[in-house]
Amino acid sequence: MDISRWKMRQGKKKFQERTVTLAHGSGGSAMRDLIDDVFVGSFDNPTLSLLEDQARIDLGSLMLLGDCLAFTTDSYVVTPLFFPGGDIGSLAVNGTVNDLCVSGAKPLFLSCSVILEEGLEIDILRRVVDSMKAAALAVGVQIVTGDTKVVPRGSADKLFINTTGIGVIKTGVSPAAFQIQPGDIILVNGSLGDHGAAILVARGELSLETDIQSDCQPLNGLVDAIVSVCPNVRAMRDATRGGLATVLNEFAQSANVGIRLHESAIPVRKEVAGMCELLGFDPLYLANEGKLVVVVPPDSADEVLAAMRSHSAGKDARIVGEVIANPAGVVLLKTEFGTERIVDMLVGEQLPRIC
Amino acid sequence: MDISRWKMRQGKKKFQERTVTLAHGSGGSAMRDLIDDVFVGSFDNPTLSLLEDQARIDLGSLMLLGDCLAFTTDSYVVTPLFFPGGDIGSLAVNGTVNDLCVSGAKPLFLSCSVILEEGLEIDILRRVVDSMKAAALAVGVQIVTGDTKVVPRGSADKLFINTTGIGVIKTGVSPAAFQIQPGDIILVNGSLGDHGAAILVARGELSLETDIQSDCQPLNGLVDAIVSVCPNVRAMRDATRGGLATVLNEFAQSANVGIRLHESAIPVRKEVAGMCELLGFDPLYLANEGKLVVVVPPDSADEVLAAMRSHSAGKDARIVGEVIANPAGVVLLKTEFGTERIVDMLVGEQLPRIC
Repeated sequence: MDISRWKMRQGKKKFQERTVTLAHGSGGSAMRDLIDDVFVGSFDNPTLSLLEDQARIDLGSLMLLGDCLAFTTDSYVVTPLFFPGGDIGSLAVNGTVNDLCVSGAKPLFLSCSVILEEGLEIDILRRVVDSMKAAALAVGVQIVTGDTKVVPRGSADKLFINTTGIGVIKTGVSPAAFQIQPGDIILVNGSLGDHGAAILVARGELSLETDIQSDCQPLNGLVDAIVSVCPNVRAMRDATRGGLATVLNEFAQSANVGIRLHESAIPVRKEVAGMCELLGFDPLYLANEGKLVVVVPPDSADEVLAAMRSHSAGKDARIVGEVIANPAGVVLLKTEFGTERIVDMLVGEQLPRIC
Repeated sequence: MDISRWKMRQGKKKFQERTVTLAHGSGGSAMRDLIDDVFVGSFDNPTLSLLEDQARIDLGSLMLLGDCLAFTTDSYVVTPLFFPGGDIGSLAVNGTVNDLCVSGAKPLFLSCSVILEEGLEIDILRRVVDSMKAAALAVGVQIVTGDTKVVPRGSADKLFINTTGIGVIKTGVSPAAFQIQPGDIILVNGSLGDHGAAILVARGELSLETDIQSDCQPLNGLVDAIVSVCPNVRAMRDATRGGLATVLNEFAQSANVGIRLHESAIPVRKEVAGMCELLGFDPLYLANEGKLVVVVPPDSADEVLAAMRSHSAGKDARIVGEVIANPAGVVLLKTEFGTERIVDMLVGEQLPRIC
């Protein structure tokens, strides 16, 4: 048996595949080549090891940042994969980063697990991975471990991504919904419904000409700005599926308080409002991917608003409502006409595969 | 507006849905009900909070267990969902637990993110979640955070699960492939290829009558037994997709050593060997879901073998080979006839959606 000739045949071949095949999910050499070429090349960092099945992270260095680990997961099934203002890759990084930072955590590490449909173009995968790399770099998180599965054609739609994140919560910062109390003030960092509207347009089912972009962005910098002036922020959440209305209903139920929103204060872009009117959507329920809902003690509201507006992700920040004692568990909207209506939890579906 | 009548309508309704709908993925009340009824009821633990989007874990208590965090992710796309010896739920827990414990980590926490196809029967989902609960209980891990996405019919095949795990590596234990050296001894804990064979049978494409079961099981207890007699274990890995052959090729390449396997020592059940012969498979490449590959210094081999055999997951443990200096990066098989052949990295696909 000629070992040297066999070894030569194994020599590093340039990865030339054009579409994903089942071999790329088999655990064998094709999968190693795909991971090596498409993922590791992009996500290269000292903790990402090709040699082990898990990342190893020094606990002592985490304890320097705080005393509590934050741990969150999300899968991303958005369609189309690419849309104005983002793509499934930037979404998968920013979405999980946001779920970490709203707990007061510094986002540190992500895992990345992909499910690929046989036949997916490798170039599309590369574009998505490059987008993840750029998003991770912008935030300062490292993608340190991953997984690749391939399913036969028809068993999945092109590409799904799961990212799971670890961060450390700064000592003394502990936002949590149950802490919300009557008198507290509610702020958002900008216009609602942009992501949902952008996805609708990108699906091309409507003959609409518009330049609406998804608001897909990381919120960790904005959260830092808020916490620096208000370390006792009551609660924060990113408003994703189900929109602002869903977050506020969750807050109201968690803390057993009422919430009064002021319709005239809620920022909605003209184009989004127009689209909603045309199609029968309510912007309060449309998805966002870069919108923060913040609840603060009343005497901090002005300072927090100023801090948000001084940050690039909060230029259009507004006070949109306040917390009331009663009716507990209910969200009310004071309309522009002065009447009040209930803003219920979202019932039924809105737009599938929005994130 | 009659708040009291509205509140009564919201009152806790027993969850009566029979199939998954797009509304269950919308972020609204249908999704809350599904999560509440199917997931939280089952995974109930003090860290799992319905009220926040992330789990919060005290870092100080982690540091009591060791100085290094292990972090790993896997998605599970196995078909069929239920097979002899396991299901996608037990697989999703044990698979990720195993990827943690082979680093010497005590598995502690898992996230659970599901992608559901519209139309999936809720009863199937309940069975899977119950299976996850039982598997988590058996290991002592807690499922502490999660996510639910629903895609339209045809965009996914029934159910995919991602679990991502956190564990703490005991101080002084640091198995890693690069440490493997000539003279080291290689052991496995039992028969190879059972999982791959069980899946083949469960797919019903063959008219075979057999009682082969998947070996799906957690390996943390076995790892504890090994580490207690050999804290300087060189390397450990669970042999999943691509089988023993893939793990050994990875070891050989990582450490730049050769490996010699002894065919007569490799445990393969009669039924699995027969099926392989019939269908042209090589059991060295068939998937496992409860098989550990261990590399130890030569003077620890007998003690480690005894420790493995005294554990329920290692009753059929065997020494199957040794590490050699040359040819570096190559795995050789000494056949039952006394000849030697190369055991290459898996080329091409084997069985798709095996895990």
